[in-house]
Amino acid sequence: MNTIYILKKRPFGIPEADIWKRQTEAVPQISDGEVLVKHHYISLDPAIRGWMNEGKSYIEPVNLGDVMRAGTIGIVEASKHAHFKVGDYITGWGGVQNYAVTNGKGWHKIDPSLAPLPMYLGVLGMTGMTAYFGILEVGKISAGDVVLISGAAGAVGSVAGQIAKLKGCTVIGIAGGPDKCRHLIENLGFDAALDYKSDTIVNDLKQACPKGIDVFFDNVGGEILDLALTKLRRHARVIICGAISQYNSKTRIKGPSNYLSLLVNRATMQGMVVFDYADRYQEAAITMAGWIQSGQLKSEETIVDGIDNFHDTFLRLFTGDKQGKLLLKVI
Amino acid sequence: MNTIYILKKRPFGIPEADIWKRQTEAVPQISDGEVLVKHHYISLDPAIRGWMNEGKSYIEPVNLGDVMRAGTIGIVEASKHAHFKVGDYITGWGGVQNYAVTNGKGWHKIDPSLAPLPMYLGVLGMTGMTAYFGILEVGKISAGDVVLISGAAGAVGSVAGQIAKLKGCTVIGIAGGPDKCRHLIENLGFDAALDYKSDTIVNDLKQACPKGIDVFFDNVGGEILDLALTKLRRHARVIICGAISQYNSKTRIKGPSNYLSLLVNRATMQGMVVFDYADRYQEAAITMAGWIQSGQLKSEETIVDGIDNFHDTFLRLFTGDKQGKLLLKVI
Repeated sequence: MNTIYILKKRPFGIPEADIWKRQTEAVPQISDGEVLVKHHYISLDPAIRGWMNEGKSYIEPVNLGDVMRAGTIGIVEASKHAHFKVGDYITGWGGVQNYAVTNGKGWHKIDPSLAPLPMYLGVLGMTGMTAYFGILEVGKISAGDVVLISGAAGAVGSVAGQIAKLKGCTVIGIAGGPDKCRHLIENLGFDAALDYKSDTIVNDLKQACPKGIDVFFDNVGGEILDLALTKLRRHARVIICGAISQYNSKTRIKGPSNYLSLLVNRATMQGMVVFDYADRYQEAAITMAGWIQSGQLKSEETIVDGIDNFHDTFLRLFTGDKQGKLLLKVI
Repeated sequence: MNTIYILKKRPFGIPEADIWKRQTEAVPQISDGEVLVKHHYISLDPAIRGWMNEGKSYIEPVNLGDVMRAGTIGIVEASKHAHFKVGDYITGWGGVQNYAVTNGKGWHKIDPSLAPLPMYLGVLGMTGMTAYFGILEVGKISAGDVVLISGAAGAVGSVAGQIAKLKGCTVIGIAGGPDKCRHLIENLGFDAALDYKSDTIVNDLKQACPKGIDVFFDNVGGEILDLALTKLRRHARVIICGAISQYNSKTRIKGPSNYLSLLVNRATMQGMVVFDYADRYQEAAITMAGWIQSGQLKSEETIVDGIDNFHDTFLRLFTGDKQGKLLLKVI
């Protein structure tokens, strides 16, 4: 049987479970040119929250009545497609369901002997690509830069920070709680890690970067973005990758009050969408696979079992109750 | 006699007249290496409001007890300086006073036979330099771009818009009131001009740029910045030149709630300070003088007579009761 999560209504604020229609149906049949994929993992990302909203964004919103969009990885169970064979592992936009039928567009094969499956949704997937192109192409880091990363224990932030470290930067992470902070320093090699939940965050940041920052990689927005803006050095680059603190806001998004720091410091704030770098994904994946092999880059996943846990697990993106990449295992 | 405006206390909100100590004293004497300048014009710029505030910015604040900083132009009345002779016209940071004594640092000669004196503080001075490097270097305009300019009837905005026009862009100005808007179109060649005081501004902007904007040159901040952010096209550039709507704010500055438009549109918001281009001022001045001669660029000034009108005239920057460059004539 195929369990499917369909977007029934658009959330307002933190998504409630009643926005989903959970549907169970027979495993679908395929037609000529199609493939049946049995999902192993579903990627849970903050971006999903954005796709639930109506209106223009960098990608079409999910229509009401459609399967919720999500990146997935699975095995081909049936194929009437020239390129994909039964037994192939493939990854694409399969959605929140156990089985997907696709004409193959936007899907590609992966080799499970080279890396564990979850890694293809994490550091070797969209997540890793976002970190890689964000920190290197938008952040334009070079050795000696002081790099601040929010959401630093998250999927993208943890990779971006590690890349900045191996490029010779001083890297400061902001994360939620002492455990994550300790982890960033002890296991991922960050130079400093600050707990945004701490009352002393303002002073902690001041002490961690007495001369300010050259790059801020922002996944969080809100007060953290505003705080970081007070630390910009001249010609600093602010990478707007996400704003998870704002995605469930019921009021107008909090804009950065300190944006005039961009003027004072001749700094740049630039948004990014990873899809723009699609023609270079392979280059990035090969590079990062090399760093993983050499032990310079650690891949981290929080894996939760069972498609029925989709809703509660998804909310962990917003409570921060996870580390690294969040995945749903559905096999 | 020399009338001097000294910053006595820091303003909170709209500056009141009591922040100044108006002082009259004998015309100062000069020592070896110094020059006595008799001011003809004092440049009144929104930036002055920023220099009144305490705290780090792109330039040191004016200290309490000091003459208020301002760009000036005047004639050398006495000189014990090798480079500047009596009768030379020179421009520099003379401050709000009738006479300045300087060692010549930061001052340079201008030729009053080539252009009227006010123009050297306007389109051929900091104002023009800001417009030139902002729109060309930060905005990176090219023919066909749709360029939106706030504070478009102001000193910087009116020049930036005209430069964009002569580079082949479609230029939309935002200004206060129907007279200024008509002027932008009829006299300065803007393609469209929108009155931010109008109830229909949101819709007016929509109609003026149905396909959005490639460049936004912002002198205003606040709600206008937020509105402009909703119109960004992919890879748009937002130039943060100023934020006059926020300079007198008694509360926290209004940050741009729609800043995530930078992400959606892979756009860039970049601050600028004209001083960074000092080594290219001459290039810009020569270029712009050429445009003025060919009639492609119009220089506009609002000139108010008398140093005693300094305070009230300065406030006209914030009410918008002026057009183009605002100058105080003090001769």
